[in-house]
Amino acid sequence: MKTISKTILVGCTAAFYMAVSLHPSIKTATATASTIVTADDPLPSWNDPLKSQIIAFVNKVSTPGSPDFVPLKSRIATIDNDGTLWAEKPFVQELFALSEVKKMVMADTSLARKQPFKAVVEHDKAYFEKGGEKALFQLIIATHTGMTEDQFETTVQNWFATAKYPRAGGAVSLSKIVYQPQLELLNYLRASGFKVFIVTGGTIEFVRAISDSFYGVPKENVVGTTFKYKFNDSTSTIMREPSIDLLDDKEGKPVGIQTHIGQRPIFSMGNEGGQGDIAMCKYCQSNRYPSFQMIVNHDDSTREYYYQEKDSASLKACAKYNWHVLSMKNDWKIIFPQ
Amino acid sequence: MKTISKTILVGCTAAFYMAVSLHPSIKTATATASTIVTADDPLPSWNDPLKSQIIAFVNKVSTPGSPDFVPLKSRIATIDNDGTLWAEKPFVQELFALSEVKKMVMADTSLARKQPFKAVVEHDKAYFEKGGEKALFQLIIATHTGMTEDQFETTVQNWFATAKYPRAGGAVSLSKIVYQPQLELLNYLRASGFKVFIVTGGTIEFVRAISDSFYGVPKENVVGTTFKYKFNDSTSTIMREPSIDLLDDKEGKPVGIQTHIGQRPIFSMGNEGGQGDIAMCKYCQSNRYPSFQMIVNHDDSTREYYYQEKDSASLKACAKYNWHVLSMKNDWKIIFPQ
Repeated sequence: MKTISKTILVGCTAAFYMAVSLHPSIKTATATASTIVTADDPLPSWNDPLKSQIIAFVNKVSTPGSPDFVPLKSRIATIDNDGTLWAEKPFVQELFALSEVKKMVMADTSLARKQPFKAVVEHDKAYFEKGGEKALFQLIIATHTGMTEDQFETTVQNWFATAKYPRAGGAVSLSKIVYQPQLELLNYLRASGFKVFIVTGGTIEFVRAISDSFYGVPKENVVGTTFKYKFNDSTSTIMREPSIDLLDDKEGKPVGIQTHIGQRPIFSMGNEGGQGDIAMCKYCQSNRYPSFQMIVNHDDSTREYYYQEKDSASLKACAKYNWHVLSMKNDWKIIFPQ
Repeated sequence: MKTISKTILVGCTAAFYMAVSLHPSIKTATATASTIVTADDPLPSWNDPLKSQIIAFVNKVSTPGSPDFVPLKSRIATIDNDGTLWAEKPFVQELFALSEVKKMVMADTSLARKQPFKAVVEHDKAYFEKGGEKALFQLIIATHTGMTEDQFETTVQNWFATAKYPRAGGAVSLSKIVYQPQLELLNYLRASGFKVFIVTGGTIEFVRAISDSFYGVPKENVVGTTFKYKFNDSTSTIMREPSIDLLDDKEGKPVGIQTHIGQRPIFSMGNEGGQGDIAMCKYCQSNRYPSFQMIVNHDDSTREYYYQEKDSASLKACAKYNWHVLSMKNDWKIIFPQ
């Protein structure tokens, strides 16, 4: 349960406390004239030297005859989602959970007298502080399980269709919180023969709802936190059971990768903030092929957010293992789509 | 545990009893002149009317403008392995488990005095009959877990490099027990934009070892029975734990499909013999898109094997739900590669 709280649940805590506060200095990203992808420049939103380092790696593993050539079937990229492909302050999945609580209470007002709904409705911070992980787990279970897979999918799709994200003092659609430079990178990797997988601490179906439309990543290329499922033979549907099968974070990420992909990636990218991607990058680096690891550093208080891990474990790992640090402030010309 | 025995374990029982007996009337398949794939004939080893029915389905879902057109991202095929893509008398994985027992006992002769190895070495049928599923589970655990993923992969690859399968009174390499008509079908589906997945009751890494070279199916497109894994941070390796995470058979197959693929298939194919593919075909048929289900009937005692489920559940399901029955005797011109 401790680990669970670090990914899905603690994230939610913040939201339940209505503490969704954006850094006051956030401004809308400035457009630049140099963000058009061309054959000569696949990464127009990126700055050197990191840009050149990425291109050099991709070239050496994808050029036939190169001593570092990696066959197509092993050219696997695994990329985190929250804080790596889109903003995570707050987690998008938190917003969904809160929205579900509201809907459920409106549909059945008696829920407002039952925990954990009562605590959310009454902004009862003490309940969650006292109940800890167990109370939070109750709430995740209540909003994400106990329905069929089809019902959950419909609910999530409907939510994404209208959901807004608090940013820059206003509210934007969720397609506006993806990092524009990363879209270029995903396309560049695919154009270079990489199979791109999202490996997320978020729950798998939640991310699958937008993986194709936001990132061009098909559902089957999403690895994520998974609830237990049970097939109902009489209705030919799958029921979402109130229990987690895989917590796809930290040491769970290599496990998810082995289960879904069956081999180590040669390119892995995550972010600092929750130490969630260290194990994935280590697993990637132990590939027998040449490999590339990168950690996004949230160091741009003006254009995105500034936050650092208390003990800087992810950045320390970058230094120790020679992984690339992506400074949002210095390495990206723009952050969000215009 | 009951279900476990039906898939991995009961299969092994037969092998442990050294009861690997082939039907006496098996003969080498006869070559025909009509097995060359052309644009006009993608399925030369298949006979009508089933051949035309498959082609009609593939055409209607892959032709833009067709009222039954299915978008590329949902053109998913899920296909069983044992008894559907290659022979299953005995299960290939049984042969591997037996081989591992021999190797382990040779490396450490004291194992021959310990159960369950002792029972295998001494052909002690009574031990497994008395011990039932628990004894068999012990043996699967002993041969398939307790090592790193890398070690298991090497072991399986080495085994496949030299393994022979008892067939037609002799022994053939494992590439010779795949069904030639199915290779044509897999290629035809892929050429028509299908994403082809193997969904097997066998353990996932075992099948991944040959999925690409035998069937052109990449590792990430294999869904199978999975052990629990644990990431070892100090060595960056994954340990195979002595516990099953997903039993990918019967009702487990829709669960495996949801976890790995995230949507229902529109084309599913399995075989009668162990009732293992009924749930998958039902799940496929509940797709909102047009769908196609097919069950291989092992009715060819001359060229392959003749075996039927006691209660014919799979064939009864075909009749009840209007699924296609593939008669190996009548629908295939040849069975094995020449």
